[in-house]
Amino acid sequence: MAPVITLTTDFGVGDGYAAGMKGVILSVNPQAVIVDICHTIKPQDIKQAAFIISTVHSSFPKDTIHVVVIDPCVGGDRRGVAVRTPDGCYIAPDNGLLSHVITEYLSEIRTSKRTEIRTVKLPNTIKAVSLTNREYWRSEVSPTFHGRDIFAPVAAHLSLGIPLEAVGDSIDSLNLFTIPKPHRNKRGVIAGCALHIDTFGNIITNIRKKDIPETAIIVEIAGKKIRGLSEYYAQRKSLCTLIGSSGYLEIALPNGSAASTFGVKVGDGVRVTTYIGVTNNLERRV
Amino acid sequence: MAPVITLTTDFGVGDGYAAGMKGVILSVNPQAVIVDICHTIKPQDIKQAAFIISTVHSSFPKDTIHVVVIDPCVGGDRRGVAVRTPDGCYIAPDNGLLSHVITEYLSEIRTSKRTEIRTVKLPNTIKAVSLTNREYWRSEVSPTFHGRDIFAPVAAHLSLGIPLEAVGDSIDSLNLFTIPKPHRNKRGVIAGCALHIDTFGNIITNIRKKDIPETAIIVEIAGKKIRGLSEYYAQRKSLCTLIGSSGYLEIALPNGSAASTFGVKVGDGVRVTTYIGVTNNLERRV
Amino acid sequence: MAPVITLTTDFGVGDGYAAGMKGVILSVNPQAVIVDICHTIKPQDIKQAAFIISTVHSSFPKDTIHVVVIDPCVGGDRRGVAVRTPDGCYIAPDNGLLSHVITEYLSEIRTSKRTEIRTVKLPNTIKAVSLTNREYWRSEVSPTFHGRDIFAPVAAHLSLGIPLEAVGDSIDSLNLFTIPKPHRNKRGVIAGCALHIDTFGNIITNIRKKDIPETAIIVEIAGKKIRGLSEYYAQRKSLCTLIGSSGYLEIALPNGSAASTFGVKVGDGVRVTTYIGVTNNLERRV
Repeated sequence: MAPVITLTTDFGVGDGYAAGMKGVILSVNPQAVIVDICHTIKPQDIKQAAFIISTVHSSFPKDTIHVVVIDPCVGGDRRGVAVRTPDGCYIAPDNGLLSHVITEYLSEIRTSKRTEIRTVKLPNTIKAVSLTNREYWRSEVSPTFHGRDIFAPVAAHLSLGIPLEAVGDSIDSLNLFTIPKPHRNKRGVIAGCALHIDTFGNIITNIRKKDIPETAIIVEIAGKKIRGLSEYYAQRKSLCTLIGSSGYLEIALPNGSAASTFGVKVGDGVRVTTYIGVTNNLERRV
Repeated sequence: MAPVITLTTDFGVGDGYAAGMKGVILSVNPQAVIVDICHTIKPQDIKQAAFIISTVHSSFPKDTIHVVVIDPCVGGDRRGVAVRTPDGCYIAPDNGLLSHVITEYLSEIRTSKRTEIRTVKLPNTIKAVSLTNREYWRSEVSPTFHGRDIFAPVAAHLSLGIPLEAVGDSIDSLNLFTIPKPHRNKRGVIAGCALHIDTFGNIITNIRKKDIPETAIIVEIAGKKIRGLSEYYAQRKSLCTLIGSSGYLEIALPNGSAASTFGVKVGDGVRVTTYIGVTNNLERRV
Repeated sequence: MAPVITLTTDFGVGDGYAAGMKGVILSVNPQAVIVDICHTIKPQDIKQAAFIISTVHSSFPKDTIHVVVIDPCVGGDRRGVAVRTPDGCYIAPDNGLLSHVITEYLSEIRTSKRTEIRTVKLPNTIKAVSLTNREYWRSEVSPTFHGRDIFAPVAAHLSLGIPLEAVGDSIDSLNLFTIPKPHRNKRGVIAGCALHIDTFGNIITNIRKKDIPETAIIVEIAGKKIRGLSEYYAQRKSLCTLIGSSGYLEIALPNGSAASTFGVKVGDGVRVTTYIGVTNNLERRV
């Protein structure tokens, strides 16, 4: 069975752009299995796509080829890349789209609030090539649609079993955004931020289960304090926090949108404190 | 050929949640054929999903596995179930999602306007199990995403041919909403309601072809009276009624939205009367 | 490998209508490979669908079966057709949906601004039949859903290899809209119009690469003048023109929507002039 090919784009659902990619893939590999991850990434929102692909790849077989095309600089001098990590193969413009999936493999811990894109050296566990071999492109390439004319056929050829090295020259670095990491101060207060607002209006933060003390916690966001971690959404009727399905601390409003109700958007701050032993003081502050 | 697996959820199209389910299915059965029914069910709207899956299953092969995940109480004590009817196999939380597809097999006729959920004994033609066998789940189960971690892998294993009984303990009842049935009074007036508003704004009622007298009819909704049943949409230029593609009486506005033009929403009343022999009186009333 | 079947409809993503078509296709041909082109064509917007299918078919294998269902007159006396061109096979109601894909093969050049539908004789390279053979329909046909009950099963049977002639009687003409062609006046000024607004708000015109002089050009739209043709979107920070991925002159606003920013809609005029040798005069006019 050929590996799965997934597609993540900002092409929307009102045109035939995503379908054009599928037609090209099926022209090269008629047995390709294609799965849409998401085509309604906000136009040009590289960071949103970078996050979403990072939350999905672990559900797919490890030989899956993930094609991610949010490509505002298509046709310019940004390069296209194919990258193989222990978790999957990724094909994308080298514009930060792989920031989350690659950062999982970087040893460096950065807590900087600055998230500008920078060139990052890849660890040995990750192989990457620049898409330079035109043999695997469509015969005519539109400078405005590399998704269809380069990324799609390269993915299809890789799904037929050609080696990664065949599609281009090896490279040892990629352009990545610094993923904002939560910061813990001396008093144990964890300062993080909202990474993503999902379909339900749940606020997904950059704080992971392992970042949170095992003691009881208070989560503060948008001037609200939420005491204690729920296990699942319906456990409370009001604003709650829990560890979501991708392992991140999440703020949710059962049967409602936490983000729109409280006006939270991506990047907004979130704080986690503990209240074991300081309950009274905290109560007073609340 | 493996049976088709369909997906119906309220996960939206802006995240990777539905794709996560597909990745899990393809990890278990790489040859699975997956079809999206709808992922834009209004969040937590169990009744809408229950209706939509009931209008689609008859188009699929009878061995199709329909996974339906509108699951506001995921992680709590609501159980997950797999149910086989003569028309298909269904995997869902036991929260009323299968109300329409199961009610088709219940002999009891209920005309109650009350639609609270209640526990209903299943007829012998329907086999059901509670999803208790963790052998067919993902190794780690998020309490917030059973769609991906329980329902998807169970569907994939069933598509590989394991028997229904393997995935859990037999059960003989399910939680179902009472589907509102149209009521006919002594004078032959049929009182029903709007079950669904579709993409075009067509109003789909709970009155079926067989409920309607063969004589000429008048349909009343939102203060409007529509005389006579059209055969197809373009037969009239104005508000019309016809039997829609799922066998229900439908009110449509050609090239427009009947629901938004006349402010009709799900649950609103609709009346059907006959006018053969009483034309003059009716004319006066109109 | 069976040919691909694509689907283009105005059924939206909130109901199970498109899925119903897929269920029927898979009931006839369990190995069918089905690709969604677009299901969010504006309800009843035949021209939009006609354009979109024309921009996508060249990405698919030439034996692909494209099913296009925008069908406001379903159930009436409009006929359903199956048409084979050198580029693909199309199944649709005969209401103008194939205007773009067929017009590519018509020798006649029409520059009329009138775009009413008219009956057009087909060239010898195109074979067409009226869908009259009920043997390939579903056993029960709803007068409101030929997409599911006629077009889908006919597509599935064709994907199994039956000849086009088997599904109905040969016909030698189709109902087509006249595609508005750009007009060049004596002074070389090209007058065209907006054919489509895409997801990004890019304005796609009816002027093709071959229509444009190789000299430097000025594009005028909505009172704006844009000098020079870009090669790709990010080449400029402001309003730009380029040849888009389907070969049409396109007006784009990098990281924004040209159409909504400048209030352009389908049908609005666009002019192309040259400025080689008349730069000064033009500058003054600008």
